[in-house]
Amino acid sequence: MIKRLCIIGLGSIGGSLARALRSAGACGEVVGVDRDPEQLHRAVELGVIDRQDTDAAKAVAGADMVVVAVPVGAMTAVFRAIAPAVSAGAVVTDVGSTKASVVMAANEAWRNIPENFVPGHPIAGTEKSGIEAANGELFQGRRVILTPLAQTRRTAVERVREMWVAAGAEVTEMEVVHHDEVLAATSHLPHLLAFNLVDTLANAEEQEEIFQYAAGGFRDFTRIASSDPVMWRDICLANRGPILDALAKFSTNLAELAKAIGQGDEEYILTVLRRAKAARDRFCG
Amino acid sequence: MIKRLCIIGLGSIGGSLARALRSAGACGEVVGVDRDPEQLHRAVELGVIDRQDTDAAKAVAGADMVVVAVPVGAMTAVFRAIAPAVSAGAVVTDVGSTKASVVMAANEAWRNIPENFVPGHPIAGTEKSGIEAANGELFQGRRVILTPLAQTRRTAVERVREMWVAAGAEVTEMEVVHHDEVLAATSHLPHLLAFNLVDTLANAEEQEEIFQYAAGGFRDFTRIASSDPVMWRDICLANRGPILDALAKFSTNLAELAKAIGQGDEEYILTVLRRAKAARDRFCG
Repeated sequence: MIKRLCIIGLGSIGGSLARALRSAGACGEVVGVDRDPEQLHRAVELGVIDRQDTDAAKAVAGADMVVVAVPVGAMTAVFRAIAPAVSAGAVVTDVGSTKASVVMAANEAWRNIPENFVPGHPIAGTEKSGIEAANGELFQGRRVILTPLAQTRRTAVERVREMWVAAGAEVTEMEVVHHDEVLAATSHLPHLLAFNLVDTLANAEEQEEIFQYAAGGFRDFTRIASSDPVMWRDICLANRGPILDALAKFSTNLAELAKAIGQGDEEYILTVLRRAKAARDRFCG
Repeated sequence: MIKRLCIIGLGSIGGSLARALRSAGACGEVVGVDRDPEQLHRAVELGVIDRQDTDAAKAVAGADMVVVAVPVGAMTAVFRAIAPAVSAGAVVTDVGSTKASVVMAANEAWRNIPENFVPGHPIAGTEKSGIEAANGELFQGRRVILTPLAQTRRTAVERVREMWVAAGAEVTEMEVVHHDEVLAATSHLPHLLAFNLVDTLANAEEQEEIFQYAAGGFRDFTRIASSDPVMWRDICLANRGPILDALAKFSTNLAELAKAIGQGDEEYILTVLRRAKAARDRFCG
Protein backbone atom coordinates (compact mmCIF):
# COMPACT_ATOMS: atom_id res chain seq x y z
CA MET A 1 0.00 0.00 0.00
CA ILE A 2 1.31 3.38 -1.05
CA LYS A 3 0.38 6.16 1.38
CA ARG A 4 1.16 9.16 -0.75
CA LEU A 5 1.88 8.68 -4.44
CA CYS A 6 3.51 11.50 -6.38
CA ILE A 7 3.31 11.27 -10.15
CA ILE A 8 5.44 13.68 -12.12
CA GLY A 9 4.19 14.02 -15.69
CA LEU A 10 0.47 13.50 -16.29
CA GLY A 11 0.60 12.08 -19.78
CA SER A 12 -1.21 8.91 -20.77
CA ILE A 13 1.18 6.67 -18.78
CA GLY A 14 1.28 8.74 -15.59
CA GLY A 15 -2.45 9.38 -15.69
CA SER A 16 -3.29 5.75 -16.42
CA LEU A 17 -1.13 4.55 -13.52
CA ALA A 18 -2.88 6.95 -11.12
CA ARG A 19 -6.28 5.74 -12.31
CA ALA A 20 -5.30 2.06 -12.09
CA LEU A 21 -3.88 2.35 -8.56
CA ARG A 22 -6.83 4.35 -7.28
CA SER A 23 -9.38 1.92 -8.59
CA ALA A 24 -7.34 -0.98 -7.13
CA GLY A 25 -7.34 0.82 -3.78
CA ALA A 26 -3.55 0.50 -3.82
CA CYS A 27 -2.75 4.06 -2.84
CA GLY A 28 -3.89 6.83 -0.54
CA GLU A 29 -3.41 10.40 -1.69
CA VAL A 30 -2.23 11.09 -5.24
CA VAL A 31 -0.26 14.24 -5.91
CA GLY A 32 0.23 15.18 -9.55
CA VAL A 33 2.90 17.37 -11.10
CA ASP A 34 2.98 18.68 -14.65
CA ARG A 35 4.52 21.73 -16.26
CA ASP A 36 1.25 22.33 -18.09
CA PRO A 37 -1.27 23.92 -15.65
CA GLU A 38 -4.17 22.97 -17.91
CA GLN A 39 -3.27 19.28 -17.84
CA LEU A 40 -3.03 19.51 -14.06
CA HIS A 41 -6.36 21.23 -13.80
CA ARG A 42 -8.02 18.59 -16.00
CA ALA A 43 -6.38 15.82 -13.95
CA VAL A 44 -8.01 17.11 -10.76
CA GLU A 45 -11.28 17.69 -12.57
CA LEU A 46 -11.30 14.15 -13.95
CA GLY A 47 -10.49 12.76 -10.50
CA VAL A 48 -7.19 11.28 -11.67
CA ILE A 49 -5.27 13.05 -8.88
CA ASP A 50 -6.25 14.54 -5.50
CA ARG A 51 -3.87 17.45 -5.43
CA GLN A 52 -1.78 19.31 -7.98
CA ASP A 53 1.49 21.16 -7.92
CA THR A 54 3.66 22.68 -10.61
CA ASP A 55 6.68 22.51 -8.30
CA ALA A 56 8.09 18.97 -8.31
CA ALA A 57 10.30 19.54 -5.26
CA LYS A 58 7.33 20.60 -3.14
CA ALA A 59 5.15 17.83 -4.47
CA VAL A 60 7.51 14.95 -3.61
CA ALA A 61 7.82 16.02 0.04
CA GLY A 62 6.05 13.42 2.15
CA ALA A 63 5.43 10.99 -0.71
CA ASP A 64 6.52 7.40 -0.13
CA MET A 65 6.40 6.56 -3.84
CA VAL A 66 7.52 8.92 -6.62
CA VAL A 67 6.89 7.98 -10.25
CA VAL A 68 8.62 10.10 -12.88
CA ALA A 69 6.59 9.83 -16.09
CA VAL A 70 8.07 12.55 -18.30
CA PRO A 71 9.67 12.14 -21.77
CA VAL A 72 13.16 10.69 -21.39
CA GLY A 73 14.72 13.99 -22.50
CA ALA A 74 13.24 15.72 -19.45
CA MET A 75 14.44 13.15 -16.86
CA THR A 76 17.65 14.94 -15.84
CA ALA A 77 15.85 18.20 -15.08
CA VAL A 78 13.16 16.44 -13.02
CA PHE A 79 15.67 14.30 -11.11
CA ARG A 80 17.70 17.43 -10.31
CA ALA A 81 14.60 19.21 -9.05
CA ILE A 82 13.48 16.39 -6.78
CA ALA A 83 16.90 15.07 -5.61
CA PRO A 84 17.15 17.34 -2.54
CA ALA A 85 13.45 17.01 -1.65
CA VAL A 86 12.62 13.29 -1.79
CA SER A 87 11.87 11.88 1.69
CA ALA A 88 14.34 9.39 3.16
CA GLY A 89 12.80 5.96 2.62
CA ALA A 90 10.73 7.02 -0.37
CA VAL A 91 11.08 4.90 -3.48
CA VAL A 92 11.65 6.68 -6.81
CA THR A 93 10.95 4.99 -10.12
CA ASP A 94 10.43 6.09 -13.71
CA VAL A 95 8.57 4.89 -16.81
CA GLY A 96 11.08 5.87 -19.51
CA SER A 97 11.26 3.80 -22.70
CA THR A 98 15.05 3.81 -22.65
CA LYS A 99 16.94 2.80 -19.53
CA ALA A 100 20.65 3.59 -19.97
CA SER A 101 19.83 7.26 -20.56
CA VAL A 102 17.61 7.37 -17.47
CA VAL A 103 20.35 5.83 -15.34
CA MET A 104 22.77 8.45 -16.71
CA ALA A 105 20.25 11.18 -15.87
CA ALA A 106 19.90 9.85 -12.32
CA ASN A 107 23.66 9.72 -11.97
CA GLU A 108 23.96 13.31 -13.12
CA ALA A 109 21.30 14.53 -10.70
CA TRP A 110 22.28 12.55 -7.59
CA ARG A 111 25.98 11.80 -8.25
CA ASN A 112 25.51 8.59 -6.30
CA ILE A 113 22.35 6.96 -7.60
CA PRO A 114 20.16 6.32 -4.51
CA GLU A 115 19.53 2.76 -3.37
CA ASN A 116 15.82 3.49 -3.54
CA PHE A 117 15.83 4.42 -7.22
CA VAL A 118 14.35 1.66 -9.44
CA PRO A 119 14.47 2.23 -13.22
CA GLY A 120 11.32 0.84 -14.84
CA HIS A 121 9.47 0.65 -18.13
CA PRO A 122 5.83 -0.31 -18.64
CA ILE A 123 5.48 -1.69 -22.20
CA ALA A 124 2.10 -0.20 -22.76
CA GLY A 125 2.51 2.45 -25.36
CA THR A 126 -0.40 4.20 -26.89
CA GLU A 127 -0.40 6.64 -29.76
CA LYS A 128 -2.68 8.86 -27.69
CA SER A 129 -1.17 11.61 -25.59
CA GLY A 130 -2.18 13.62 -22.55
CA ILE A 131 -4.32 13.22 -19.47
CA GLU A 132 -7.51 12.71 -21.49
CA ALA A 133 -6.00 9.41 -22.69
CA ALA A 134 -5.55 8.17 -19.09
CA ASN A 135 -7.06 4.71 -18.88
CA GLY A 136 -7.10 2.63 -15.71
CA GLU A 137 -7.10 -0.59 -17.74
CA LEU A 138 -4.02 0.29 -19.81
CA PHE A 139 -1.66 -1.97 -17.88
CA GLN A 140 -3.93 -5.02 -17.60
CA GLY A 141 -1.87 -8.00 -18.77
CA ARG A 142 0.93 -5.76 -20.03
CA ARG A 143 4.57 -6.25 -19.16
CA VAL A 144 6.64 -3.94 -17.02
CA ILE A 145 10.41 -4.32 -17.13
CA LEU A 146 12.42 -3.20 -14.10
CA THR A 147 16.16 -2.75 -14.56
CA PRO A 148 17.59 -2.51 -11.01
CA LEU A 149 21.25 -1.53 -10.63
CA ALA A 150 23.96 -3.10 -8.47
CA GLN A 151 23.18 -0.73 -5.59
CA THR A 152 19.39 -0.90 -5.85
CA ARG A 153 17.74 -2.24 -2.69
CA ARG A 154 15.62 -5.37 -3.14
CA THR A 155 12.95 -3.86 -0.89
CA ALA A 156 12.67 -0.89 -3.26
CA VAL A 157 12.38 -3.21 -6.26
CA GLU A 158 9.65 -5.16 -4.47
CA ARG A 159 7.67 -2.03 -3.69
CA VAL A 160 7.74 -0.96 -7.35
CA ARG A 161 6.83 -4.49 -8.41
CA GLU A 162 3.83 -4.48 -6.05
CA MET A 163 2.69 -1.16 -7.45
CA TRP A 164 2.67 -2.45 -11.03
CA VAL A 165 1.06 -5.74 -10.08
CA ALA A 166 -1.70 -3.74 -8.38
CA ALA A 167 -2.12 -1.84 -11.66
CA GLY A 168 -2.64 -5.18 -13.43
CA ALA A 169 0.78 -5.65 -15.03
CA GLU A 170 3.21 -8.55 -15.14
CA VAL A 171 6.64 -7.53 -13.89
CA THR A 172 10.01 -8.86 -15.07
CA GLU A 173 13.61 -7.77 -14.57
CA MET A 174 16.34 -7.23 -17.12
CA GLU A 175 19.75 -5.63 -17.38
CA VAL A 176 19.78 -2.02 -18.53
CA VAL A 177 21.78 -2.57 -21.73
CA HIS A 178 19.80 -5.62 -22.72
CA HIS A 179 16.53 -3.78 -22.19
CA ASP A 180 17.65 -1.04 -24.54
CA GLU A 181 18.62 -3.51 -27.28
CA VAL A 182 15.37 -5.47 -27.06
CA LEU A 183 13.24 -2.32 -27.10
CA ALA A 184 15.21 -0.80 -29.99
CA ALA A 185 14.25 -3.85 -32.06
CA THR A 186 10.63 -4.32 -31.01
CA SER A 187 9.48 -0.78 -30.39
CA HIS A 188 11.84 2.00 -31.44
CA LEU A 189 12.62 0.58 -34.90
CA PRO A 190 8.95 -0.02 -35.85
CA HIS A 191 8.04 3.49 -34.71
CA LEU A 192 10.77 5.02 -36.87
CA LEU A 193 9.70 2.92 -39.87
CA ALA A 194 6.10 4.04 -39.48
CA PHE A 195 7.05 7.71 -39.04
CA ASN A 196 9.40 7.49 -42.03
CA LEU A 197 6.82 5.78 -44.26
CA VAL A 198 4.11 8.33 -43.55
CA ASP A 199 6.56 11.19 -44.02
CA THR A 200 7.78 9.73 -47.33
CA LEU A 201 4.22 9.45 -48.62
CA ALA A 202 3.28 12.88 -47.28
CA ASN A 203 6.06 14.38 -49.37
CA ALA A 204 4.79 12.78 -52.59
CA GLU A 205 3.05 15.05 -55.08
CA GLU A 206 -0.09 12.94 -55.09
CA GLN A 207 -0.30 12.69 -51.30
CA GLU A 208 -4.03 13.40 -51.13
CA GLU A 209 -4.77 10.57 -53.50
CA ILE A 210 -2.25 8.21 -51.97
CA PHE A 211 -3.76 8.42 -48.50
CA GLN A 212 -7.24 8.19 -49.96
CA TYR A 213 -6.51 4.71 -51.26
CA ALA A 214 -4.73 3.50 -48.16
CA ALA A 215 -6.61 0.51 -46.75
CA GLY A 216 -6.98 -1.04 -43.33
CA GLY A 217 -3.53 -2.62 -43.41
CA PHE A 218 -2.01 0.82 -43.86
CA ARG A 219 -3.98 2.24 -40.96
CA ASP A 220 -2.79 -0.50 -38.61
CA PHE A 221 0.76 -0.27 -39.92
CA THR A 222 1.00 3.48 -39.41
CA ARG A 223 -1.01 3.82 -36.17
CA ILE A 224 2.21 4.28 -34.18
CA ALA A 225 3.16 7.22 -36.45
CA SER A 226 0.48 9.18 -34.58
CA SER A 227 2.58 8.95 -31.39
CA ASP A 228 3.98 12.01 -29.64
CA PRO A 229 6.86 13.46 -31.72
CA VAL A 230 8.69 15.02 -28.74
CA MET A 231 8.63 11.77 -26.78
CA TRP A 232 9.97 9.88 -29.79
CA ARG A 233 12.65 12.44 -30.64
CA ASP A 234 13.85 12.00 -27.07
CA ILE A 235 13.88 8.22 -27.44
CA CYS A 236 15.87 8.48 -30.69
CA LEU A 237 18.50 10.55 -28.95
CA ALA A 238 18.45 8.57 -25.69
CA ASN A 239 18.85 5.14 -27.27
CA ARG A 240 20.93 6.15 -30.25
CA GLY A 241 23.38 3.23 -30.37
CA PRO A 242 20.92 0.30 -30.18
CA ILE A 243 18.51 2.11 -32.53
CA LEU A 244 21.23 2.67 -35.14
CA ASP A 245 22.25 -1.00 -34.86
CA ALA A 246 18.67 -2.16 -35.37
CA LEU A 247 18.19 0.28 -38.26
CA ALA A 248 21.38 -0.94 -39.93
CA LYS A 249 20.32 -4.60 -39.75
CA PHE A 250 16.87 -3.75 -41.07
CA SER A 251 18.27 -1.63 -43.92
CA THR A 252 20.81 -4.27 -44.99
CA ASN A 253 18.05 -6.85 -45.22
CA LEU A 254 15.74 -4.45 -47.03
CA ALA A 255 18.44 -3.69 -49.60
CA GLU A 256 18.89 -7.45 -50.17
CA LEU A 257 15.16 -7.86 -50.63
CA ALA A 258 15.05 -4.93 -53.08
CA LYS A 259 17.93 -6.51 -55.01
CA ALA A 260 16.05 -9.81 -55.20
CA ILE A 261 12.93 -8.02 -56.45
CA GLY A 262 14.99 -6.20 -59.08
CA GLN A 263 16.52 -9.47 -60.23
CA GLY A 264 13.22 -11.34 -60.12
CA ASP A 265 14.70 -13.82 -57.63
CA GLU A 266 11.43 -15.58 -56.78
CA GLU A 267 13.01 -18.05 -54.40
CA TYR A 268 14.78 -15.46 -52.27
CA ILE A 269 11.64 -13.34 -52.03
CA LEU A 270 9.41 -16.27 -51.13
CA THR A 271 11.89 -17.51 -48.50
CA VAL A 272 11.92 -14.12 -46.73
CA LEU A 273 8.13 -13.73 -46.83
CA ARG A 274 7.53 -17.29 -45.61
CA ARG A 275 10.02 -16.98 -42.78
CA ALA A 276 8.43 -13.69 -41.72
CA LYS A 277 4.89 -15.05 -41.82
CA ALA A 278 5.91 -18.15 -39.86
CA ALA A 279 7.59 -16.03 -37.17
CA ARG A 280 4.68 -13.61 -36.89
CA ASP A 281 2.07 -16.36 -36.76
CA ARG A 282 4.11 -18.19 -34.15
CA PHE A 283 4.77 -15.27 -31.85
CA CYS A 284 1.81 -12.97 -32.32
CA GLY A 285 -0.69 -15.57 -33.62
CA MET B 1 -28.39 -8.90 -61.77
CA ILE B 2 -25.87 -11.61 -62.60
CA LYS B 3 -27.48 -14.84 -63.80
CA ARG B 4 -24.53 -17.15 -63.48
CA LEU B 5 -21.43 -15.95 -61.65
CA CYS B 6 -18.21 -17.89 -62.07
CA ILE B 7 -15.49 -17.20 -59.52
CA ILE B 8 -12.06 -18.61 -60.26
CA GLY B 9 -9.96 -18.79 -57.12
CA LEU B 10 -11.77 -19.28 -53.82
CA GLY B 11 -9.44 -17.42 -51.51
CA SER B 12 -10.63 -14.80 -49.07
CA ILE B 13 -11.44 -12.25 -51.84
CA GLY B 14 -13.22 -14.66 -54.21
CA GLY B 15 -15.11 -16.31 -51.37
CA SER B 16 -16.08 -13.01 -49.76
CA LEU B 17 -17.40 -11.65 -53.06
CA ALA B 18 -19.55 -14.76 -53.58
CA ARG B 19 -20.97 -14.41 -50.07
CA ALA B 20 -21.61 -10.69 -50.44
CA LEU B 21 -23.42 -11.03 -53.79
CA ARG B 22 -25.52 -13.96 -52.59
CA SER B 23 -26.66 -12.20 -49.49
CA ALA B 24 -27.46 -9.08 -51.56
CA GLY B 25 -29.51 -11.26 -53.92
CA ALA B 26 -27.40 -9.87 -56.75
CA CYS B 27 -26.64 -13.15 -58.47
CA GLY B 28 -28.26 -16.42 -59.42
CA GLU B 29 -26.08 -19.51 -59.55
CA VAL B 30 -22.49 -19.32 -58.33
CA VAL B 31 -19.94 -21.66 -59.86
CA GLY B 32 -16.60 -21.87 -58.09
CA VAL B 33 -13.25 -22.97 -59.46
CA ASP B 34 -10.11 -23.70 -57.50
CA ARG B 35 -7.13 -25.90 -58.09
CA ASP B 36 -7.44 -27.16 -54.53
CA PRO B 37 -10.29 -29.74 -54.35
CA GLU B 38 -10.50 -29.37 -50.57
CA GLN B 39 -11.10 -25.63 -50.78
CA LEU B 40 -13.80 -26.31 -53.38
CA HIS B 41 -15.41 -28.94 -51.23
CA ARG B 42 -15.42 -26.60 -48.21
CA ALA B 43 -16.84 -23.78 -50.35
CA VAL B 44 -19.85 -25.92 -51.30
CA GLU B 45 -20.19 -27.16 -47.73
CA LEU B 46 -20.15 -23.61 -46.35
CA GLY B 47 -22.72 -22.54 -48.94
CA VAL B 48 -20.36 -20.01 -50.52
CA ILE B 49 -20.89 -21.53 -53.99
CA ASP B 50 -23.59 -23.71 -55.57
CA ARG B 51 -21.46 -25.78 -57.85
CA GLN B 52 -17.78 -26.59 -58.11
CA ASP B 53 -15.42 -27.41 -60.91
CA THR B 54 -11.67 -27.86 -61.10
CA ASP B 55 -11.72 -27.14 -64.84
CA ALA B 56 -11.93 -23.39 -65.43
CA ALA B 57 -12.85 -23.73 -69.13
CA LYS B 58 -15.87 -25.88 -68.32
CA ALA B 59 -16.89 -23.70 -65.43
CA VAL B 60 -17.02 -20.42 -67.36
CA ALA B 61 -19.33 -21.82 -70.06
CA GLY B 62 -22.72 -20.18 -69.66
CA ALA B 63 -21.58 -17.67 -67.04
CA ASP B 64 -22.42 -14.02 -67.73
CA MET B 65 -19.90 -12.74 -65.18
CA VAL B 66 -16.45 -14.27 -64.63
CA VAL B 67 -14.29 -13.05 -61.74
CA VAL B 68 -10.67 -14.19 -61.73
CA ALA B 69 -9.46 -14.08 -58.12
CA VAL B 70 -6.14 -15.93 -58.22
CA PRO B 71 -2.68 -14.60 -57.22
CA VAL B 72 -1.37 -12.27 -59.93
CA GLY B 73 1.31 -14.79 -60.90
CA ALA B 74 -1.38 -17.29 -61.92
CA MET B 75 -3.42 -14.88 -64.10
CA THR B 76 -1.83 -15.79 -67.46
CA ALA B 77 -2.51 -19.50 -67.03
CA VAL B 78 -6.12 -18.89 -65.99
CA PHE B 79 -6.77 -16.40 -68.81
CA ARG B 80 -5.32 -18.90 -71.31
CA ALA B 81 -7.55 -21.65 -69.99
CA ILE B 82 -10.75 -19.61 -70.15
CA ALA B 83 -10.06 -17.55 -73.33
CA PRO B 84 -11.62 -20.06 -75.75
CA ALA B 85 -14.50 -20.93 -73.43
CA VAL B 86 -15.96 -17.62 -72.18
CA SER B 87 -19.46 -16.98 -73.61
CA ALA B 88 -19.88 -14.13 -76.05
CA GLY B 89 -21.32 -11.24 -74.09
CA ALA B 90 -19.94 -12.43 -70.77
CA VAL B 91 -17.96 -9.89 -68.77
CA VAL B 92 -14.57 -10.93 -67.38
CA THR B 93 -12.91 -9.07 -64.50
CA ASP B 94 -10.15 -9.77 -62.02
CA VAL B 95 -9.19 -8.73 -58.49
CA GLY B 96 -5.39 -8.56 -58.83
CA SER B 97 -3.44 -6.11 -56.68
CA THR B 98 -1.30 -5.03 -59.62
CA LYS B 99 -2.90 -3.98 -62.88
CA ALA B 100 -0.20 -3.59 -65.57
CA SER B 101 0.85 -7.23 -65.09
CA VAL B 102 -2.77 -8.41 -65.33
CA VAL B 103 -3.27 -6.45 -68.55
CA MET B 104 -0.08 -8.07 -69.93
CA ALA B 105 -1.37 -11.48 -68.92
CA ALA B 106 -4.69 -10.81 -70.67
CA ASN B 107 -2.83 -9.67 -73.75
CA GLU B 108 -0.74 -12.82 -73.75
CA ALA B 109 -3.77 -15.07 -73.43
CA TRP B 110 -6.16 -13.35 -75.84
CA ARG B 111 -3.74 -11.49 -78.17
CA ASN B 112 -6.42 -8.84 -78.57
CA ILE B 113 -7.72 -8.02 -75.12
CA PRO B 114 -11.52 -8.46 -75.28
CA GLU B 115 -13.79 -5.42 -75.01
CA ASN B 116 -15.58 -7.16 -72.17
CA PHE B 117 -12.49 -7.54 -69.98
CA VAL B 118 -12.44 -5.04 -67.09
CA PRO B 119 -9.31 -5.02 -64.88
CA GLY B 120 -10.28 -4.40 -61.27
CA HIS B 121 -8.87 -4.26 -57.74
CA PRO B 122 -10.86 -4.33 -54.51
CA ILE B 123 -8.74 -2.64 -51.82
CA ALA B 124 -9.83 -4.94 -49.08
CA GLY B 125 -6.84 -6.95 -48.12
CA THR B 126 -6.87 -9.26 -45.19
CA GLU B 127 -3.96 -11.14 -43.72
CA LYS B 128 -6.21 -14.20 -43.58
CA SER B 129 -6.14 -16.69 -46.46
CA GLY B 130 -8.48 -19.29 -47.89
CA ILE B 131 -12.19 -19.93 -48.11
CA GLU B 132 -12.62 -20.09 -44.33
CA ALA B 133 -11.77 -16.38 -44.26
CA ALA B 134 -14.63 -15.58 -46.69
CA ASN B 135 -16.68 -12.76 -45.18
CA GLY B 136 -19.71 -11.23 -46.87
CA GLU B 137 -19.06 -7.90 -45.11
CA LEU B 138 -15.47 -7.57 -46.32
CA PHE B 139 -16.24 -5.00 -49.03
CA GLN B 140 -18.64 -2.81 -47.04
CA GLY B 141 -17.43 0.75 -47.48
CA ARG B 142 -14.18 -0.37 -49.14
CA ARG B 143 -12.91 1.03 -52.40
CA VAL B 144 -12.68 -0.89 -55.65
CA ILE B 145 -10.53 0.57 -58.41
CA LEU B 146 -11.38 -0.33 -62.01
CA THR B 147 -8.74 0.38 -64.66
CA PRO B 148 -10.57 0.07 -68.00
CA LEU B 149 -8.47 0.13 -71.20
CA ALA B 150 -9.02 2.10 -74.40
CA GLN B 151 -11.00 -0.77 -75.94
CA THR B 152 -13.03 -1.65 -72.84
CA ARG B 153 -16.77 -1.28 -73.39
CA ARG B 154 -18.56 1.10 -71.01
CA THR B 155 -21.39 -1.38 -70.60
CA ALA B 156 -18.88 -3.96 -69.33
CA VAL B 157 -17.41 -1.43 -66.89
CA GLU B 158 -20.91 -0.60 -65.66
CA ARG B 159 -21.75 -4.25 -65.06
CA VAL B 160 -18.60 -4.74 -62.98
CA ARG B 161 -19.33 -1.51 -61.12
CA GLU B 162 -22.86 -2.70 -60.30
CA MET B 163 -21.48 -5.98 -59.00
CA TRP B 164 -19.12 -4.26 -56.57
CA VAL B 165 -21.73 -1.74 -55.49
CA ALA B 166 -24.04 -4.67 -54.72
CA ALA B 167 -21.22 -6.13 -52.61
CA GLY B 168 -21.12 -2.89 -50.62
CA ALA B 169 -18.08 -1.22 -52.18
CA GLU B 170 -17.42 2.26 -53.55
CA VAL B 171 -16.11 2.08 -57.12
CA THR B 172 -13.65 4.48 -58.76
CA GLU B 173 -11.64 4.39 -61.98
CA MET B 174 -7.97 5.03 -62.54
CA GLU B 175 -5.34 4.52 -65.22
CA VAL B 176 -3.40 1.27 -65.01
CA VAL B 177 0.05 2.79 -64.47
CA HIS B 178 -1.21 5.29 -61.91
CA HIS B 179 -2.98 2.51 -59.99
CA ASP B 180 0.27 0.57 -59.75
CA GLU B 181 2.20 3.57 -58.44
CA VAL B 182 -0.40 4.46 -55.82
CA LEU B 183 -0.68 0.88 -54.60
CA ALA B 184 3.09 0.41 -54.50
CA ALA B 185 3.25 3.31 -52.04
CA THR B 186 0.22 2.56 -49.85
CA SER B 187 0.11 -1.21 -49.86
CA HIS B 188 3.08 -3.01 -51.39
CA LEU B 189 5.74 -0.96 -49.61
CA PRO B 190 4.19 -1.32 -46.12
CA HIS B 191 3.80 -5.06 -46.64
CA LEU B 192 7.47 -5.42 -47.58
CA LEU B 193 8.53 -3.32 -44.59
CA ALA B 194 6.48 -5.48 -42.23
CA PHE B 195 7.75 -8.75 -43.73
CA ASN B 196 11.32 -7.44 -43.63
CA LEU B 197 11.06 -6.26 -40.03
CA VAL B 198 9.69 -9.56 -38.73
CA ASP B 199 12.27 -11.51 -40.71
CA THR B 200 15.08 -9.30 -39.38
CA LEU B 201 13.94 -9.88 -35.79
CA ALA B 202 13.36 -13.59 -36.38
CA ASN B 203 16.99 -13.93 -37.42
CA ALA B 204 18.28 -12.33 -34.22
CA GLU B 205 19.81 -14.62 -31.63
CA GLU B 206 17.41 -13.53 -28.93
CA GLN B 207 14.32 -13.87 -31.11
CA GLU B 208 12.24 -15.63 -28.45
CA GLU B 209 12.83 -12.83 -26.01
CA ILE B 210 12.45 -10.09 -28.58
CA PHE B 211 8.97 -11.21 -29.64
CA GLN B 212 8.01 -11.78 -26.02
CA TYR B 213 8.44 -8.09 -25.26
CA ALA B 214 6.74 -6.87 -28.40
CA ALA B 215 3.72 -4.77 -27.42
CA GLY B 216 0.44 -3.85 -29.07
CA GLY B 217 2.05 -1.36 -31.44
CA PHE B 218 4.24 -4.13 -32.81
CA ARG B 219 1.29 -6.44 -33.33
CA ASP B 220 -0.59 -3.84 -35.33
CA PHE B 221 2.51 -2.85 -37.25
CA THR B 222 3.34 -6.41 -38.27
CA ARG B 223 -0.20 -7.76 -38.82
CA ILE B 224 0.26 -7.55 -42.61
CA ALA B 225 3.38 -9.75 -42.33
CA SER B 226 0.96 -12.62 -41.71
CA SER B 227 -0.33 -12.26 -45.29
CA ASP B 228 0.01 -15.02 -47.89
CA PRO B 229 3.68 -15.27 -49.00
CA VAL B 230 2.91 -16.64 -52.49
CA MET B 231 0.46 -13.85 -53.23
CA TRP B 232 2.97 -11.26 -52.09
CA ARG B 233 5.90 -12.81 -53.96
CA ASP B 234 3.74 -12.52 -57.08
CA ILE B 235 2.95 -8.87 -56.33
CA CYS B 236 6.67 -8.11 -55.85
CA LEU B 237 7.44 -9.56 -59.25
CA ALA B 238 4.36 -8.15 -60.98
CA ASN B 239 4.82 -4.56 -59.79
CA ARG B 240 8.59 -4.53 -59.66
CA GLY B 241 9.23 -1.04 -61.06
CA PRO B 242 6.84 1.02 -58.90
CA ILE B 243 7.78 -1.06 -55.83
CA LEU B 244 11.50 -0.45 -56.34
CA ASP B 245 10.82 3.28 -56.80
CA ALA B 246 8.81 3.42 -53.58
CA LEU B 247 11.45 1.37 -51.72
CA ALA B 248 14.21 3.68 -52.95
CA LYS B 249 12.43 6.81 -51.74
CA PHE B 250 11.69 5.21 -48.39
CA SER B 251 15.29 4.00 -47.97
CA THR B 252 16.81 7.35 -48.88
CA ASN B 253 14.65 9.06 -46.27
CA LEU B 254 15.39 6.37 -43.68
CA ALA B 255 19.14 6.79 -44.25
CA GLU B 256 18.75 10.55 -43.72
CA LEU B 257 16.84 9.93 -40.50
CA ALA B 258 19.50 7.46 -39.30
CA LYS B 259 22.19 10.05 -40.06
CA ALA B 260 20.30 12.67 -38.06
CA ILE B 261 19.97 10.25 -35.12
CA GLY B 262 23.71 9.48 -35.31
CA GLN B 263 24.54 13.19 -35.30
CA GLY B 264 22.01 14.00 -32.59
CA ASP B 265 20.25 16.45 -34.94
CA GLU B 266 17.22 17.06 -32.73
CA GLU B 267 15.60 19.52 -35.09
CA TYR B 268 15.72 17.26 -38.14
CA ILE B 269 14.33 14.32 -36.18
CA LEU B 270 11.53 16.36 -34.63
CA THR B 271 10.58 17.85 -38.01
CA VAL B 272 10.22 14.41 -39.61
CA LEU B 273 8.22 12.96 -36.69
CA ARG B 274 5.94 16.00 -36.50
CA ARG B 275 5.28 16.03 -40.24
CA ALA B 276 4.48 12.30 -40.15
CA LYS B 277 2.13 12.61 -37.18
CA ALA B 278 0.34 15.55 -38.77
CA ALA B 279 -0.14 13.65 -42.05
CA ARG B 280 -1.36 10.48 -40.33
CA ASP B 281 -3.73 12.34 -38.02
CA ARG B 282 -5.08 14.29 -40.97
CA PHE B 283 -5.63 11.38 -43.33
CA CYS B 284 -6.34 8.44 -41.06
CA GLY B 285 -7.61 10.52 -38.11
